[in-house]
Amino acid sequence: MSYLGYLRCLRCGTKVAAGAGYGGCPDCAAAGVNVNALPAYDLSGVDDLIPVDRSQRGIFRYRRLLPLSGGDPVVSLGEGGTPLLPVPRLGAALGVPRLYLKDETRNPTWSYKDRLAAVAISRAVADGAETVVVATTGNHGAAVAAYAAAAGLRCVVLTLESVPQTMKTLMQVYGAEVVALRAAPERWQLMAEAVRERGWVPMSGYRNPPVGSNPFGVDGYKTIAYELVEQLGTAPDVVVVPTAYADGLAGIGRGFDDLRELGVIGRAPRLVAAESFGPYSDALASGAELGGPVPAGPTVAFSIGSPFGTYQGLAALRGSDGVGVAVPDDSEILDHQALVGRTEGLYLENASVVAVAAAGKLAHAGQLGPQETVVVIGSSTGLKDVGATAARLPAVPVIAPDLASLDAALGTVTR
Amino acid sequence: MSYLGYLRCLRCGTKVAAGAGYGGCPDCAAAGVNVNALPAYDLSGVDDLIPVDRSQRGIFRYRRLLPLSGGDPVVSLGEGGTPLLPVPRLGAALGVPRLYLKDETRNPTWSYKDRLAAVAISRAVADGAETVVVATTGNHGAAVAAYAAAAGLRCVVLTLESVPQTMKTLMQVYGAEVVALRAAPERWQLMAEAVRERGWVPMSGYRNPPVGSNPFGVDGYKTIAYELVEQLGTAPDVVVVPTAYADGLAGIGRGFDDLRELGVIGRAPRLVAAESFGPYSDALASGAELGGPVPAGPTVAFSIGSPFGTYQGLAALRGSDGVGVAVPDDSEILDHQALVGRTEGLYLENASVVAVAAAGKLAHAGQLGPQETVVVIGSSTGLKDVGATAARLPAVPVIAPDLASLDAALGTVTR
Ligand SMILES: [Zn+2]
Ligand SMILES: [Zn+2]
Repeated sequence: MSYLGYLRCLRCGTKVAAGAGYGGCPDCAAAGVNVNALPAYDLSGVDDLIPVDRSQRGIFRYRRLLPLSGGDPVVSLGEGGTPLLPVPRLGAALGVPRLYLKDETRNPTWSYKDRLAAVAISRAVADGAETVVVATTGNHGAAVAAYAAAAGLRCVVLTLESVPQTMKTLMQVYGAEVVALRAAPERWQLMAEAVRERGWVPMSGYRNPPVGSNPFGVDGYKTIAYELVEQLGTAPDVVVVPTAYADGLAGIGRGFDDLRELGVIGRAPRLVAAESFGPYSDALASGAELGGPVPAGPTVAFSIGSPFGTYQGLAALRGSDGVGVAVPDDSEILDHQALVGRTEGLYLENASVVAVAAAGKLAHAGQLGPQETVVVIGSSTGLKDVGATAARLPAVPVIAPDLASLDAALGTVTR
Repeated sequence: MSYLGYLRCLRCGTKVAAGAGYGGCPDCAAAGVNVNALPAYDLSGVDDLIPVDRSQRGIFRYRRLLPLSGGDPVVSLGEGGTPLLPVPRLGAALGVPRLYLKDETRNPTWSYKDRLAAVAISRAVADGAETVVVATTGNHGAAVAAYAAAAGLRCVVLTLESVPQTMKTLMQVYGAEVVALRAAPERWQLMAEAVRERGWVPMSGYRNPPVGSNPFGVDGYKTIAYELVEQLGTAPDVVVVPTAYADGLAGIGRGFDDLRELGVIGRAPRLVAAESFGPYSDALASGAELGGPVPAGPTVAFSIGSPFGTYQGLAALRGSDGVGVAVPDDSEILDHQALVGRTEGLYLENASVVAVAAAGKLAHAGQLGPQETVVVIGSSTGLKDVGATAARLPAVPVIAPDLASLDAALGTVTR
């Protein structure tokens, strides 16, 4: 058994009790720095290099590296085990010859947040939770709502009035109780009250400035690193992750750290935070800690359109010699979404497309060697915001049923 | 090698050349009956019971039972290998204690049509195709467009003006050239001309009345039967399939037939055609062949909302002692969509929900034994038509950020 049953602060190393509301390290918060505390493990008892249970499918094959104890039941919808697709035509267009896409759209709610939700909800069930609460603009809430339904838990979602109707519907259809606030900080404040007064279990962060999500859920993303090494037979050189509060980035980094500690890989890949407005690139450039919120506006990559970074994200980047790449421009993002579609037959959410565009920017800047293996995390499906895609496409012409009309129309529609 | 390189008529047994436009059996058509001709195999050389190539993921693990020859390359986006999820809470609500859902939303374009497209496009590439054409209202076209992009083929889509914008956008984003006709028969007529005059390779049917799709693609669905038997360790008793032209139903039935011939299973499951308007239930009730189109109207299950059945579908039902179950009522469908969401955390397209509702109707009518294992094919994601779901859900209330406002709002939102 490798999970030790408590959390540890990423910054000061303080042991934090699992079950205290998961709001990050109290010592660091008292010192004015909001930092996540994540599960602690003892890997010395792990003798197989990647501990895989082949009777299980998906992420729970690696349960000995997850924050579960021996008898804990798991709540699974068959998440993980997603394909790693070579994307050579896209790679050629971007100047990244050895490019792969990890197709996380193939999860139960069609985003990689299912890895987080599966572990966080399994842990909540093992701990006797009755109600979970999440502050979310979309994919995270959908994943938590689905797993709460599968577990028979009550789920309260605090979203924003401005969130697209598709995302609200998706959360509601899983039976969650969804209410909207007018502004993000209001949401966090209400969530903090509900966690404190009602004992609801938080599935997302609620501190301001943010620390990241439910710590058990963060470790659900470790499984992406394990799968990548199984699929490639070795570690990739670079992994590009769509990033806001960096649960995915931090979790993936922790997974590679496990594999290095276990002797499976010699060196962890460089992590790249593909971001909308640049809190990570700014902090890395200045060599300082994260400042306050950076200037931000609306973006088609709304899933990562945050002005905030987190300590866990910056630590993962510094620890892997990584970088941040900001892609704020909607036209550039939508052009890349169409490029991915027509070259490889894949339709990605715009937040994921930011990671594709970031890989191209790095190559263009000479920061990727031609022999380097680069993995982009395709975090969610384009179906979650079809409207943004449609706005850039020509209308579908209505034609008469003869070849002459077809020929005339085909001259006018895009290839 | 088991694919014999030609097609065989399902009705008269005539050998039909592979590559003649795939429009069904010419002899039967001359006699006034439109019937599909499907790939012929010799299984006598197959010595392993389920011929699985474990170095491959997904459907091409079974390539020796697919219409490919030894050296043929495959076009793959990592399709198939989808989870078979036990859904006991949904089963209890429907009166089907041993209910499973085959989650086909986990395919590359989030529908089971990817199995069809992967095989049909692989065959088209092996045969030297340059342009493929498909008449479609949605999932089929999206799948074909994606695989054509992955293969570098030109793809022309003939759709209907009335198809939801989401489906049109999805096909366009994969780089297909999409045009719309005003009525379905016009589409078939134009497609027949393009196949004849231009040599474009048809990915869907284009006869009137319809025979079903590209015959190689139909056999892509055989892999669902192989996976089910691998996942359950035996054949299920009943498989419920959302059905219009019955490519999926016929292909799944052919897969079970293979396994019976190979001695893997003793008895094939009963197949159930879950349909909107009842051409199959009508024909089975009367003991006759399919008549003309049945009365049909709009339905939220638009993917299967056809007034036509096909010979291949009726033959699969008769050959398996199966039945048809019609679910024309939109309210009933949408209620079941919400039931699936809140009991199991799964969001299915309404055509798939018709199959869920059909299982419940069969149980209610005493046509399912309590010990019978029943598999419903969850053919596509609810994300493809979120609007229909949203119309039945309450609006998300906007609240002030305090617990009193939250409590008041939670009294009013659905669980
Ligand atoms: Zn600390
Ligand atoms: Zn015939």
